[in-house]
Amino acid sequence: MASLGDIGVAAAINILSVFAFFVAFAILRLQPFNDRVYFPKWYLKGLRSCPVHSGAFVHKFVNLDYRSYISFLNWMPSALKMPEPELINHAGLDSAVYLRIYLLGLKLFVPITLIAFTVLVPVNWTNDTLEHSHVTFNDIDRLSISNIPTGSKRFWTHIVLAYVFTFWTCYVLHKEYGLVESMRLHFLSSEQRRPDQFTVLVRNVPPDPDETVSELVEHFFLVNHPDHYLTHQVVYNANELADLVKEKKKMQNWLDYYQLKYSRNQSKRPRMKTGLLGFFGDEVDAIDFYTSEMEKISEEIEAERERIISNPKSIMPAAFVSFKSRWGAAVSAQTQQSRDPTMWLTEWAPEPRDVYWHNLAVPFVTLTIRRLIIAVAFFFLTFFFMIPIAFVQSLANITGIEKAAPFLKPVIEVHAIKAFIQGFLPGIVLKIFLILLPTILMIMSKIEGFISISYLERRSASRYYLFKLVNVFLGSIVTGTAFEQLHSFSHEPANNIPKTIGVSIPMKATFFITYIMIDGWAGVAGEIIRLKPLIIFHLKNFFMVKTEKDREEAMDPGSLGFNTGEPQIQFYFLLGLVYAVVTPILLPFVVVFFCLAYVVFRHQIINVYNQEYESAAAFWPDVHGRIIAALIISQLLLMGLLSTKQAAQSTPFLIVLPVLTIWFHRFCKSRFEPAFVRYPLKEAMMKDTLERTRERNLNLKEYLQNAYLHPVFKSGEDEDSDRVSAEWGQSSLVPTKRQSRMNTLLPGRFSGSSSPLLPEDIPEQD
Amino acid sequence: MASLGDIGVAAAINILSVFAFFVAFAILRLQPFNDRVYFPKWYLKGLRSCPVHSGAFVHKFVNLDYRSYISFLNWMPSALKMPEPELINHAGLDSAVYLRIYLLGLKLFVPITLIAFTVLVPVNWTNDTLEHSHVTFNDIDRLSISNIPTGSKRFWTHIVLAYVFTFWTCYVLHKEYGLVESMRLHFLSSEQRRPDQFTVLVRNVPPDPDETVSELVEHFFLVNHPDHYLTHQVVYNANELADLVKEKKKMQNWLDYYQLKYSRNQSKRPRMKTGLLGFFGDEVDAIDFYTSEMEKISEEIEAERERIISNPKSIMPAAFVSFKSRWGAAVSAQTQQSRDPTMWLTEWAPEPRDVYWHNLAVPFVTLTIRRLIIAVAFFFLTFFFMIPIAFVQSLANITGIEKAAPFLKPVIEVHAIKAFIQGFLPGIVLKIFLILLPTILMIMSKIEGFISISYLERRSASRYYLFKLVNVFLGSIVTGTAFEQLHSFSHEPANNIPKTIGVSIPMKATFFITYIMIDGWAGVAGEIIRLKPLIIFHLKNFFMVKTEKDREEAMDPGSLGFNTGEPQIQFYFLLGLVYAVVTPILLPFVVVFFCLAYVVFRHQIINVYNQEYESAAAFWPDVHGRIIAALIISQLLLMGLLSTKQAAQSTPFLIVLPVLTIWFHRFCKSRFEPAFVRYPLKEAMMKDTLERTRERNLNLKEYLQNAYLHPVFKSGEDEDSDRVSAEWGQSSLVPTKRQSRMNTLLPGRFSGSSSPLLPEDIPEQD
Repeated sequence: MASLGDIGVAAAINILSVFAFFVAFAILRLQPFNDRVYFPKWYLKGLRSCPVHSGAFVHKFVNLDYRSYISFLNWMPSALKMPEPELINHAGLDSAVYLRIYLLGLKLFVPITLIAFTVLVPVNWTNDTLEHSHVTFNDIDRLSISNIPTGSKRFWTHIVLAYVFTFWTCYVLHKEYGLVESMRLHFLSSEQRRPDQFTVLVRNVPPDPDETVSELVEHFFLVNHPDHYLTHQVVYNANELADLVKEKKKMQNWLDYYQLKYSRNQSKRPRMKTGLLGFFGDEVDAIDFYTSEMEKISEEIEAERERIISNPKSIMPAAFVSFKSRWGAAVSAQTQQSRDPTMWLTEWAPEPRDVYWHNLAVPFVTLTIRRLIIAVAFFFLTFFFMIPIAFVQSLANITGIEKAAPFLKPVIEVHAIKAFIQGFLPGIVLKIFLILLPTILMIMSKIEGFISISYLERRSASRYYLFKLVNVFLGSIVTGTAFEQLHSFSHEPANNIPKTIGVSIPMKATFFITYIMIDGWAGVAGEIIRLKPLIIFHLKNFFMVKTEKDREEAMDPGSLGFNTGEPQIQFYFLLGLVYAVVTPILLPFVVVFFCLAYVVFRHQIINVYNQEYESAAAFWPDVHGRIIAALIISQLLLMGLLSTKQAAQSTPFLIVLPVLTIWFHRFCKSRFEPAFVRYPLKEAMMKDTLERTRERNLNLKEYLQNAYLHPVFKSGEDEDSDRVSAEWGQSSLVPTKRQSRMNTLLPGRFSGSSSPLLPEDIPEQD
Repeated sequence: MASLGDIGVAAAINILSVFAFFVAFAILRLQPFNDRVYFPKWYLKGLRSCPVHSGAFVHKFVNLDYRSYISFLNWMPSALKMPEPELINHAGLDSAVYLRIYLLGLKLFVPITLIAFTVLVPVNWTNDTLEHSHVTFNDIDRLSISNIPTGSKRFWTHIVLAYVFTFWTCYVLHKEYGLVESMRLHFLSSEQRRPDQFTVLVRNVPPDPDETVSELVEHFFLVNHPDHYLTHQVVYNANELADLVKEKKKMQNWLDYYQLKYSRNQSKRPRMKTGLLGFFGDEVDAIDFYTSEMEKISEEIEAERERIISNPKSIMPAAFVSFKSRWGAAVSAQTQQSRDPTMWLTEWAPEPRDVYWHNLAVPFVTLTIRRLIIAVAFFFLTFFFMIPIAFVQSLANITGIEKAAPFLKPVIEVHAIKAFIQGFLPGIVLKIFLILLPTILMIMSKIEGFISISYLERRSASRYYLFKLVNVFLGSIVTGTAFEQLHSFSHEPANNIPKTIGVSIPMKATFFITYIMIDGWAGVAGEIIRLKPLIIFHLKNFFMVKTEKDREEAMDPGSLGFNTGEPQIQFYFLLGLVYAVVTPILLPFVVVFFCLAYVVFRHQIINVYNQEYESAAAFWPDVHGRIIAALIISQLLLMGLLSTKQAAQSTPFLIVLPVLTIWFHRFCKSRFEPAFVRYPLKEAMMKDTLERTRERNLNLKEYLQNAYLHPVFKSGEDEDSDRVSAEWGQSSLVPTKRQSRMNTLLPGRFSGSSSPLLPEDIPEQD
């Protein structure tokens, strides 16, 4: 176990490495050839089209202006400078509220740290239990609850502080929930007109022998919402078409490339080989080849499109139904339509770009079965994931490889290689699994049949958190695999579980401090340097980028990744709350994490990430719920710990805390959650009335007509904008771009150097 | 422990006593002077006004027609004869569906009994484990799972049967849920126009300094539901007024009595004393006195009414809002109105007679606090109710009484009296508590602030079931008080709990068989004879009934008592399911209970009970859920039992069952429950359209204007119908009466003796 000094050294090393990362970032960032890696958001928003390089210099790739390197940390204040409303306009409410989670961490833990250090540390330190005992101990332990003698009256301090921390947490959570709620409502009410405000997704349209799905939907809503129904759009099963369109896009890209090549060098028409990877097969004229291929595939696409539209089997029993007013849509989304609650299911349509088209037609009965299967699968994944991994590990040992590939024997038997295989291979198998885990969880969520990407991410996030809770938190505290824990816990008295875990809590403090520094601090510093995207971008740029469009694709920064990011933050909430009373020395590390992460992610959100969708902070109830769960876990563990300290009379005082916390959660749920699920009619009516007076001649039908057409169909309708809508994930960027330009800032504001929005640290003056 | 023979003797005795009850019932029922006790429903429906006595005989009180006594059981077929649709018309859907719970018990347990007896009994009987062991045992045990040697392969029979029974239970439950759902929907769609179809209750109208609640409500709904809002009715706090009206009614009754007396004997004006109970004080002319008193109180009522209407403080922040169409009301009830989900809360208005007026104005924050308090209180009531009872018992012992009242000492010291006090007093205290328990639970539900009587009853029912589960079921199986169990269970491994209970299950079979016979069989037989109402009616009729109205009140049969009745049935479901695999000999006793209860309650529902409200079987999800809970309990206990029998390999097979059952429950919940909570727009629209075409000139506003006026105000509006609306519970009968006459049968049909609806066993012919 590390002493306080050891921890100090480790912290110093980690701080230094974080600084090293920052310096590296400062240098890399200022090189114009990295501009598309570190500021892709500005390109995507159309506010920048080439790196801002100094005057007419040749340094197109390297920045030689020494002044710009001096203040290498000035991206931090500039990241913090953008006010929240502008941040919302710039990056969306989701991102702005996501940042508030880090801020919440600071609000929560800074006062807790202060109180804990002024009250708890002296109380713990001024004992000498550990000195008189014969256990090995260190300074960390002297600062923790372990230093209090059993049965001491001093435990009352801890109990009182548990109350104080609980009330503070609840207070902060309550305030934050209210704030996020009002931000969401304000955001929704000040938003521009969007198709999803008028549209409802209807699923499980019952089959009818006489009418098509389209007719059926129209009749149903004309009858049951006569004053409000406007139009609808059926959902096609267009997965094959999507593949073809993707193919066509790729060819278009090659064609562009060769035409560009030809236009530069008119003397020679470019030639290519038709076979594998362009290395084999007949050599043909490239432009002619791709032109004819393009024609062929265009015909195929047309045929497939015809087939889909004419074939009733490719029409799914679902439709996007649009209404004349937001009020009508709100009513339809919140009510039950038909007798049979499994038919004519209505719900708010997600944003067009948020729709996960693949899941639109899963029938109701399958849904519950799918969820049962996935629930069971997730249970096994959480508790038994070590079994297949151990199996793979056993295969991947020396003798296994020798058996499978005897010819490798001489190589493997070399000492260094043998050591490497034996030492690293098992670890790598586990690591690969952990890297793949979020993807696995995402696939599980997709199988469950949810229809919006935002919901899929939220679902995966909660699963990921559970996995981390069981396998990282409990797994580190109690030795043995999760399955062994499960087995032993089910054979233990129920009230022994918090005891067993609670007792180990103080002993694991140093481990978690190290964990916070390596996973938290270094992870965040690694985030800002974007090493993987940096390398990939340059590799792509060097080898694969043929056209401007390719470069744009190579630049694609992706979105924030709620499904992996949020569970990570939650883990620090859990650690902070659990250790707040037990070992307060851990708290500053958590606070530093939240500080760093807040600044870094604010910078990344402003400059890098590009959200795929906008859910208007629909994830907040999940965030709130998980912090509450962490709070309850911390209370139960404290109860377990104190009951072993012969402070048994404390149990009745501590049992009140989880009861109060659960009640608080239920209160918050009924007070705030509806704002994240439903759309109040009053708000809808207000927006409708306002719009009606402002725009009297609005042709809403035209506006909504094709909003929810499957993206692959759109490409057919305006042939020349193939590029825009070819792949739907890509196409979805377009409306945003337009929208955000519309309601945020004029591009002109960005070009002025005085604007606070401009990343000021880029050397603009010579 | 009783042997099979003992049980047989006990069963014979119980069957005989049940027959004795039936004979007593047959005799009592045919006496014309008991007619109002055994057939009050026909009086209340206005289909009978005086006992049907034979011709012009003098036997107005005693039936001397020997023929009518011969077939003393013929009330049974006649109770079963009424077809279900007519039963629904006659007694309402609630009662009809309530009977289906008994029928469900039969559907469930008759096949289970048959299978268990053909398969399990031979398998259990043909072992001799118990004979070779040195434990005392009896025939019952030989028939049970105890007779199988540990580790035997025969346990597979039990596991397979556990699967069979689970699937059968789920199948029956699923079918029944579907059936009840369609009955409910059919009932709702074929119903006559009712105010609650158009009305929504709005609560938590936010305070406004400029507008009254009434104006505020009107403006809000005119703005947000402009095409649908029709009218509204604010809610007054009229509890004092209600008291005054009650007082007036009592005086009116006395006045009627004296006037009747005077009209019979014109020679002497009746006189009375004004003091206590009419025994003390000045003697005055009774008619004059009550006439003047009536005038006084009428003035008071008028003043109070004025005060309530004019004083804004007596207007609660709630209102019943009525809409032009069912569609509008359905929309308003199912949507959120304002940003703040704690304001403008809308929900379907209960039927006017189902409203619990007292709870209409509980603010939202109080609600969650109240529920927290009640939840904690219920926890303590369930687990610690023995503590105050033991305390009272300790007070009520000999020395305690001697101390409190030393002068009683000589009396108490008499041997017989002492024995009585020591033997019975403690038991009586417990018994009184148990009798009061449903009332206590009802008061708890009322404190929680629910606004309809039907919901209060459902809430109390689920609490009562929980109490019975913990204190009767577990309390009988595991010795010790509930608190001791709680304590020991929390100190035991989680998977030991089903083991501990499971092992005791077979040993308690004889106890529960006796319980079924005494509580179930005899209870049901006692139900039909209605001993308490019979005695009370005759006492009242003899001593207190002054006027015809008094007689009607004395006759009041009350309603079915869902809050006590349903938990009792559920207890038999639990016993049946738990013992189905373990000790199948218990099953016939359960089947007999369900048979008897079905017939008896069908008779009672047809002839006696008068439902206070009609919730259209809104309780079915509760019933379904509790049977599922019983099924899961039975599966867990079987798992625990088998794991001690060294049939450990059985656990993985058995753990699948609760998982599947929970999944089945969730499936049913999403498939069927919405029909019990929401009102589909399609149905609303259909009814609206139909009504609009049928009745073009309907003045809906007039119809709805005063539907939700507090009952005490109605009495003021039509002074001459005071009697009808004086007390609201009473007044509520009127609309039903009219309604059911309207849409059921013509009274003429009842008078014909050939009608199947007529209780034929009443001697109509001489």
